[in-house]
Amino acid sequence: MAYQIAPLDRLVEQFERLPGIGQKSAQRLAFHVLGYSEEQAKQFAQCILEAKEKIHRCEICQNLTDQKVCAICAGPKRDRSTICVVQDPKDVMAFERTREYGGLYHVLHGLISPMDGVGPDSLCIKELLMRLNDGEVTEVIMATNPTVEGEATSMYISRLIKPMGIRVTRLAYGIPVGGNLEYADEVTLYRSLLGRNEI
Amino acid sequence: MAYQIAPLDRLVEQFERLPGIGQKSAQRLAFHVLGYSEEQAKQFAQCILEAKEKIHRCEICQNLTDQKVCAICAGPKRDRSTICVVQDPKDVMAFERTREYGGLYHVLHGLISPMDGVGPDSLCIKELLMRLNDGEVTEVIMATNPTVEGEATSMYISRLIKPMGIRVTRLAYGIPVGGNLEYADEVTLYRSLLGRNEI
Repeated sequence: MAYQIAPLDRLVEQFERLPGIGQKSAQRLAFHVLGYSEEQAKQFAQCILEAKEKIHRCEICQNLTDQKVCAICAGPKRDRSTICVVQDPKDVMAFERTREYGGLYHVLHGLISPMDGVGPDSLCIKELLMRLNDGEVTEVIMATNPTVEGEATSMYISRLIKPMGIRVTRLAYGIPVGGNLEYADEVTLYRSLLGRNEI
Repeated sequence: MAYQIAPLDRLVEQFERLPGIGQKSAQRLAFHVLGYSEEQAKQFAQCILEAKEKIHRCEICQNLTDQKVCAICAGPKRDRSTICVVQDPKDVMAFERTREYGGLYHVLHGLISPMDGVGPDSLCIKELLMRLNDGEVTEVIMATNPTVEGEATSMYISRLIKPMGIRVTRLAYGIPVGGNLEYADEVTLYRSLLGRNEI
């Protein structure tokens, strides 16, 4: 939709490019930003440029960081014998929120997906294998999403790691805590039966 | 939530300030922007600054524009005898989308709302009255939202204009086109009865 105000149209367009933001929301956001003071608008613009400029991948785990090595890899209290392998940086945050995992991470930055032309070489798999060479790591936890691509990636990587004599584990499948059995799908229910534990 | 990556946290914070964007969405948007090329990020930042810098109020109708006078006020084909009074620039766009209204607008930039400390003096009412002095305008359409504040504002302004011998009208109330009578509230149904027309 044309406002016939070029700078406003351009700003709306920028917001429309963001995921989950439709035309109406983009307009709303653009008008909100127009209501900012000059100082606030400058700050917003600056934050975008700064984030883009300063954030890059940790040279060990490939997670995002503004340092040479990320805070987790550099953490003195982290258990260096366990690596949790995830698809992307958001997953690291999800695990960190549990406050229960004390090991290290490795971010693949994607999943194997032949349909989308993503092969193993596009992921950070060699970086993971290199980390396993020093003998300090005793367990690799495959924590990719429980989707076809996630499973395939997890399977592919575990086949590479197992010959190195390192334990490879996968996240447990089952019913979500606080969930309702009625709404659980058949596969999930079956997997939660298979994985049942003594109480 | 701390990512322990200051530039990322700051960017997430900026997105969280936007209306309708919660913590999770803000994170998603920030990660999306991190995936931009340097060029794209620069463009986004530039659009924010440019919009803020170049867009201001039209000196006649108070709508937003990057010119001295907005495209509607400057339009040679516009009917200068009618002014449609709206709360804010988004409402102008809503009317323009109908492609049926050919008159001018006046944007109040707010509604009278004593509870929020907004009195008539905070709105662009004097600018409206000044436009009515030249005798060219014969009708003022009050098109504020059908809320308590909208009604009060519309009533207040119409009392100022009527003594000038200018016709003041209000948008019709009634059932929305394509709506369902079952879901219409009582007041709307009553107003649509009151305003019924010959067919």
